[in-house]
Amino acid sequence: MARDSRYDVLFEPVRIGPVTAPNRFYQVPHASGMTNALPRVRAAFRETKAEGGWGVVCTGACSIDESSDDAPLPFATLWDRNDIHAHALTTEAAHRHGALAGVELWHGGASVMNRSSRLPPLSPSGIPWMATHVGFMGNLRPRTMDRADIREVLRWQAEGARKARTAGFDIVYVYAGMGYLGYEFLLPEYNHRTDEYGGPIENRVRFVREMLDVTRDAVGKDCGVALRVSLEELRGRPGRHHPSEAHELVAQLSDHADLFDVKMDSSPTDCSPSRFSGEGSHEPVIDFVKTLTDKPVVGVGRFTSPDMMVSQIRRGVLDFIGGARPSIADPFLPNKIREGRIEEIRECIGCNICISSWHDGVPVRCTQNPTAGEEWRRGWHPERVAPATRPGKVLVVGGGPAGLECALTSARQGHEVTIVDAGTSWGGRLTFEKTLPGLAAWNRVADYRLGRLNDMPNVSLYLDSRLGVDDIIEFAPDHLVLATGARWTRSLYSSMEIPVGKLEHENVFTPDDIAAGRLPEGPTLVFDFDNYYYGGVLTEHLASRGIEVAYVTPAGQASAWTIMTNELPLVHRALARRNVPVTTLHRLKDFDGDTATLAHLFTGEETKVACRAVLIVGLRAPRTELEEAIAARRGEIDAAGIRSLVTIGDALAPGAIAHAVHSGHLAARELGRSGSRAHYLRDTPITDREPAFDRAEAAE
Amino acid sequence: MARDSRYDVLFEPVRIGPVTAPNRFYQVPHASGMTNALPRVRAAFRETKAEGGWGVVCTGACSIDESSDDAPLPFATLWDRNDIHAHALTTEAAHRHGALAGVELWHGGASVMNRSSRLPPLSPSGIPWMATHVGFMGNLRPRTMDRADIREVLRWQAEGARKARTAGFDIVYVYAGMGYLGYEFLLPEYNHRTDEYGGPIENRVRFVREMLDVTRDAVGKDCGVALRVSLEELRGRPGRHHPSEAHELVAQLSDHADLFDVKMDSSPTDCSPSRFSGEGSHEPVIDFVKTLTDKPVVGVGRFTSPDMMVSQIRRGVLDFIGGARPSIADPFLPNKIREGRIEEIRECIGCNICISSWHDGVPVRCTQNPTAGEEWRRGWHPERVAPATRPGKVLVVGGGPAGLECALTSARQGHEVTIVDAGTSWGGRLTFEKTLPGLAAWNRVADYRLGRLNDMPNVSLYLDSRLGVDDIIEFAPDHLVLATGARWTRSLYSSMEIPVGKLEHENVFTPDDIAAGRLPEGPTLVFDFDNYYYGGVLTEHLASRGIEVAYVTPAGQASAWTIMTNELPLVHRALARRNVPVTTLHRLKDFDGDTATLAHLFTGEETKVACRAVLIVGLRAPRTELEEAIAARRGEIDAAGIRSLVTIGDALAPGAIAHAVHSGHLAARELGRSGSRAHYLRDTPITDREPAFDRAEAAE
Repeated sequence: MARDSRYDVLFEPVRIGPVTAPNRFYQVPHASGMTNALPRVRAAFRETKAEGGWGVVCTGACSIDESSDDAPLPFATLWDRNDIHAHALTTEAAHRHGALAGVELWHGGASVMNRSSRLPPLSPSGIPWMATHVGFMGNLRPRTMDRADIREVLRWQAEGARKARTAGFDIVYVYAGMGYLGYEFLLPEYNHRTDEYGGPIENRVRFVREMLDVTRDAVGKDCGVALRVSLEELRGRPGRHHPSEAHELVAQLSDHADLFDVKMDSSPTDCSPSRFSGEGSHEPVIDFVKTLTDKPVVGVGRFTSPDMMVSQIRRGVLDFIGGARPSIADPFLPNKIREGRIEEIRECIGCNICISSWHDGVPVRCTQNPTAGEEWRRGWHPERVAPATRPGKVLVVGGGPAGLECALTSARQGHEVTIVDAGTSWGGRLTFEKTLPGLAAWNRVADYRLGRLNDMPNVSLYLDSRLGVDDIIEFAPDHLVLATGARWTRSLYSSMEIPVGKLEHENVFTPDDIAAGRLPEGPTLVFDFDNYYYGGVLTEHLASRGIEVAYVTPAGQASAWTIMTNELPLVHRALARRNVPVTTLHRLKDFDGDTATLAHLFTGEETKVACRAVLIVGLRAPRTELEEAIAARRGEIDAAGIRSLVTIGDALAPGAIAHAVHSGHLAARELGRSGSRAHYLRDTPITDREPAFDRAEAAE
Repeated sequence: MARDSRYDVLFEPVRIGPVTAPNRFYQVPHASGMTNALPRVRAAFRETKAEGGWGVVCTGACSIDESSDDAPLPFATLWDRNDIHAHALTTEAAHRHGALAGVELWHGGASVMNRSSRLPPLSPSGIPWMATHVGFMGNLRPRTMDRADIREVLRWQAEGARKARTAGFDIVYVYAGMGYLGYEFLLPEYNHRTDEYGGPIENRVRFVREMLDVTRDAVGKDCGVALRVSLEELRGRPGRHHPSEAHELVAQLSDHADLFDVKMDSSPTDCSPSRFSGEGSHEPVIDFVKTLTDKPVVGVGRFTSPDMMVSQIRRGVLDFIGGARPSIADPFLPNKIREGRIEEIRECIGCNICISSWHDGVPVRCTQNPTAGEEWRRGWHPERVAPATRPGKVLVVGGGPAGLECALTSARQGHEVTIVDAGTSWGGRLTFEKTLPGLAAWNRVADYRLGRLNDMPNVSLYLDSRLGVDDIIEFAPDHLVLATGARWTRSLYSSMEIPVGKLEHENVFTPDDIAAGRLPEGPTLVFDFDNYYYGGVLTEHLASRGIEVAYVTPAGQASAWTIMTNELPLVHRALARRNVPVTTLHRLKDFDGDTATLAHLFTGEETKVACRAVLIVGLRAPRTELEEAIAARRGEIDAAGIRSLVTIGDALAPGAIAHAVHSGHLAARELGRSGSRAHYLRDTPITDREPAFDRAEAAE
């Protein structure tokens, strides 16, 4: 299929100082969670994007000195020679496919806790970043930088830039966003200085300008010098010569950078979940940048629509289509546009499981792309799978995320695949969840897979088909995959902080009841110890149906785990808009039809709440009826020639959609494998010599 | 000094199956946070204990399979040959000093989230461990183990035991405590099985017994087989043949283990902070074990008193004095008892900063022992410091934790040390904090250092001495150390989650006011955005003085960060006992003398609270008056021959006491060093070949 010529503009080369990007697809710096401890995992992860057509591929945050130590949160380092060699794996991988490689040199300032290096964090004025989530709290406040400290940071940046050049990077960043050191100099909340680095915006940009200048002096002949800067707060503050301080900043730094990489200030706005904002949400803040600089501008906005991308270029908002999440969900997004395969794009659903991986301190995971992070250690490619050595007949029972993924990946291997579902539509849990406030985009998980499956001649799809053991024996597949999902239970939650027992009352609801359209009548108490999005969004759903709802959780916040996916503040605001009272730190002990008894999680103190119904969003249990019926007739199953039987997704271990998709993919890759579970390769750091040598040696 | 003969019993050898411990000091398995990624750091940390006289030195949790993956929380692995070589560094280090080396083989079951391996966690019955702290939450629930899974775990344990023997371990553990897999089989809350592994206690111990048996079969001729088991819950449940299920368990497993390592079930009881419990707090739960087995028994209880230790042995409670925290605070505790140097013991203060390091996912830190974790990477020994190459006159201004530590370590190097304090007693912040509910033991930080300093001829101590620049110039030290501490500010907290501004009102108090004895009158609102212990304990203090107190924090819990130090539930209970209402997720916006205005952190919704005073426990700022006065007269300082000037502790960067002590120690070690900051060595994993080879190869 030929590409539509209106997309040609996306494939024009663009200069960035002394280097030239082959097209406008720019994978902006984003966390991979891989760090220098997993150099091959990281190189393979980034390489896949270059192979898929991204013209620029960048690292995530890369520390220039041990005083910028975010442990246990993942971060890369460019401190010593081992680090240079580790990064060289990535730059070589990008170059193999004609992409430029960028490095986000980074000093975290007051927002890192230096828990491993044990050095006092640095800051303009001793103001700590002390976000309220325990995972981000430290007890060591930053010290105030004097001029010698500023000179040291500038020296580290220059040394970092030279090490980056040695490692093969084409673009070197100065990072002044997201609460990190450069940003702290820009914002008067952090910067109370009375010297030439504080006060008016001209002074507050000085440190960032000096960072750009030392970088350019160090490597500007060979590498593009990029400024990454958060503009949300500054855009809200009036400037003297321009409408805002954000305008002032761009005007003052235009001659000092080769590229502007512009973004928001905080995770919930910068990397906003689709639940609360749409594609292109940064535009109102960053739309002015190109009016004040002739340097290329890159920005993000969870862009997956090529028409939207073209519009950004044509309207003069951006020069590069920045991508972080969409490049994880589909590393081959550019090539699919280039080759006119738009319908094959595996669009990011905006669930932010990727960013939760960073918060979790582990390598990146993606709901849509189960191969993310598995490229090296399991040898998984997002677009290719080896043909089956022995193609056979595969029956997948259950058409939710796990079943659909397993069917698709099996079919790509050349198996004859039949997938059936007892319901009247595909998607499993998504058939209801996609109707909940803000979750429509999540159905891309089903849409993408169904689109591919419907196009394949070796796939048969049957809805409204509830198979029994007799049906399966009659069908006699070579491989039987059970993806029958899970159901919500009426378990309560004990003071030991585990699920316990079962609350018996006719007005106790589970999410399955709500999904089936059975709504409670009268004031309803939602008791959420699942702690992810579902309790919060179901509360919104009930409230939107006019039901008076109260929300109770043993956690410290509503939908507490959504701090990991940048949703938490937005969940609280959504519940407040619906006038939902939120009670934290309490567990539900009992309910008699009129009154719910709550107990404080730690003190046990009891509270009574009048309500007519209770919805428990707590423990899920696999649906095992079919599995058990099969186990009881294992002899007949074997006799029917069914060589392998595997249970996947929620039917094995209830999890998020990301877990189900990964489980389905793994099962397809391992189809018919005998013996123990396949091991993945363990990556190891690059070491020149042992023990590691002094940092200073690495600087040229 | 000769040792008192009543302590001789502590130095008797004790058999553990086929091996013999040289004495009764047994460093039980405890987290070091070091993992196989830092094998030299880890070996040096453990070696220091063996050198200090601990007869047994164990690892922390050591995973036997990738299905037990606690990332990002630290854990060791024994999966492949690289792992064997990494651990061998530790066993060789222990053996060099005549100690036995033990390994805590471990499968986390449902309590690990497998965030890196991405495998479904294993469990007896699909019941997740879902503690309410976000850092412990995952979204993937465990699957239910079938018999094949149980056989697999037994095989992993046997293979792990053989790898452990190859690595040189003398004692191999089966771990059935703290919510991990073995424990989950023991407890009916987790174990709902209807097969031979579930039901009565005889069935529930089966899995643990089989784990012991496969371990003994694998390595029992060469290694002692230890069972580590949590007995708190089981002790509370009546047995059939014995008083409790804990009794049943010991009776049934006595013939299957060579050693019983007995403990509590949850972090807050197992590793309880001194704020809420005293030395030997496990005894009421584990006192019976020796009545039912003739195998040696080890238990812990934050033992630092040799008389208490002897009592445990003489009364038949324990055979081994287990130590985790006391062995970190003073690796040389056994040798100091052996050599009659009791007064030199650096006693653990029970602050639990060590366990917070594990929660933080980083190498262990200790308030009392700043060298913990720094043995290899900085070359610091807890008892020895190299003599100064150029001994000089050191003046330390400020006698808090940082100043005292800096003075002591400088004096040990042979400098002529003078330490002065403006107050009337030593200890800085501790002089008040030690008087607060439960914090008396914390003063050991000052007591230990004062005791040593008072014994040294090259040290002069002066209280009640407020030095000005003239005094310093007149004194003319070679090295001037400023340890003047910090003061609490009246800053509020913004919706950006950083400190902002200053609340001006005569009835706004800071902790410094309370320390100075200036108490509020009338109902008082404590606004805590420090989030560590201080806000909570000051609230207790005010309440104990009869003041009506309400506690408000923007965090999700009271003293939210104390989840890291095992204090959180206990803080809530302490506040409840004092009838203190706790409001979370709110920040203080204003106070007019009669009313405090609160705003919800996320929604901004305002609430008014009637009160007559406000205590803000928020931001601290260094006391810099002396530093600034000196800077203004730098020429005279130089002319006086003062070669170096350094600011340490809270005066540099306000932190916890652990940070101050580390800062003081670092300054002493670096005294007079010129040029840039000293780098520490970066450890790297052991790698045989690259990429890492398959797990299966490593099993013999």
